[in-house]
Amino acid sequence: MLKLYGFAVSNYYNMVKLALLEKGVPFEEVPFFAGQTPEALAISPRGKVPVLGVDQGFINETSVILEYIEQTQPGPKLLPADPFERAQILALAREIELYIELPARACYAEAFFGMPVHDAIKEKAKGELLLGIASLSRHGKFTPYVAGETLSVADIYFLFSMDLACAVGHKVFGLDLLAQFPAAKALLERLEQSPHVKKIAADKDAAMPQFLAWISSKK
Amino acid sequence: MLKLYGFAVSNYYNMVKLALLEKGVPFEEVPFFAGQTPEALAISPRGKVPVLGVDQGFINETSVILEYIEQTQPGPKLLPADPFERAQILALAREIELYIELPARACYAEAFFGMPVHDAIKEKAKGELLLGIASLSRHGKFTPYVAGETLSVADIYFLFSMDLACAVGHKVFGLDLLAQFPAAKALLERLEQSPHVKKIAADKDAAMPQFLAWISSKK
Repeated sequence: MLKLYGFAVSNYYNMVKLALLEKGVPFEEVPFFAGQTPEALAISPRGKVPVLGVDQGFINETSVILEYIEQTQPGPKLLPADPFERAQILALAREIELYIELPARACYAEAFFGMPVHDAIKEKAKGELLLGIASLSRHGKFTPYVAGETLSVADIYFLFSMDLACAVGHKVFGLDLLAQFPAAKALLERLEQSPHVKKIAADKDAAMPQFLAWISSKK
Repeated sequence: MLKLYGFAVSNYYNMVKLALLEKGVPFEEVPFFAGQTPEALAISPRGKVPVLGVDQGFINETSVILEYIEQTQPGPKLLPADPFERAQILALAREIELYIELPARACYAEAFFGMPVHDAIKEKAKGELLLGIASLSRHGKFTPYVAGETLSVADIYFLFSMDLACAVGHKVFGLDLLAQFPAAKALLERLEQSPHVKKIAADKDAAMPQFLAWISSKK
């Protein structure tokens, strides 16, 4: 059985978890906080989550795990077979990761854990975040899903990146990042009604106290 | 014929160019400086290069373009068919992009264009860069290529990320990032001897004066 290494508070962990739930693929969740210990680095070369454990070994990097699952597992497809259509969806997913999730991530410490982030880093992140949202509003279809009429990996990136980016916008910059983007707001609300997404949110809530205590112990 | 939009000074442009040259696929180079004009954004949603023009439209994001080329074009394979082996190579490529190229990129303005970068951003980039190099030394095989005995997309990311990261290490941090990593140094030297890589380097040198003038005009 596939093993999913990580923890329920990680948004990247939850991207892979949602893909597995949507496909109906059985998997075992293995608690793994990663980090820079030799034991953790033997599982994850950069000490990050998630990692997928398969018969041949470990697979890291969320985008790579999602493609591996798509290629090897049964269940509903989250990427189309046509190479051009597939590329459009993967490009949207990559844009969300690089231009929305990553700049928002530079501010997570301040937004969520009470650890101040330097103004120079916040200003850089803010500029990138605004360009990233503008890019998504140009490239995304939102009919009603990010890339069209069916759920795809682009929606998985969107759901678990945009909620945190919006929280960063609100808490760190006093901005509603989606004020001019009602289609994105509507899709977030739609996705949050899915039973699998609700289960993931409940698992995250349950894991949060332990995670915050762990963060506190590192301050 | 495939159209490659971008400019010869861009390392991401040169990643796609090398893949096309290695495969022997004919393509036309279309000069495109991207940016945030409406005309550029109609080609590239985030205003970045490269973009691949195909019959059905445009494909953006280097990692996506490389997979599209792999899926649709003839010539030597840069990714294996086996899903697990493929995932290992894609993960290495992603690690090089996210944990080496991107932190180095945060310092390009200072390293290459005489525009100072804030210390807070440099310190963050330095920490990430050192962890990224350590990760590559754990996960990479270097026998002699990054992922094993044949050239793959991981080598393409390595070649066009590590040279710039090393220049950043030297110019901004006074560090030889590969001092403890002779296998990586040896691979860089080997790759730089390839005729296709030499052609790309010559095209870059020829395009540099115009690019520097363009950067100067934006200061």
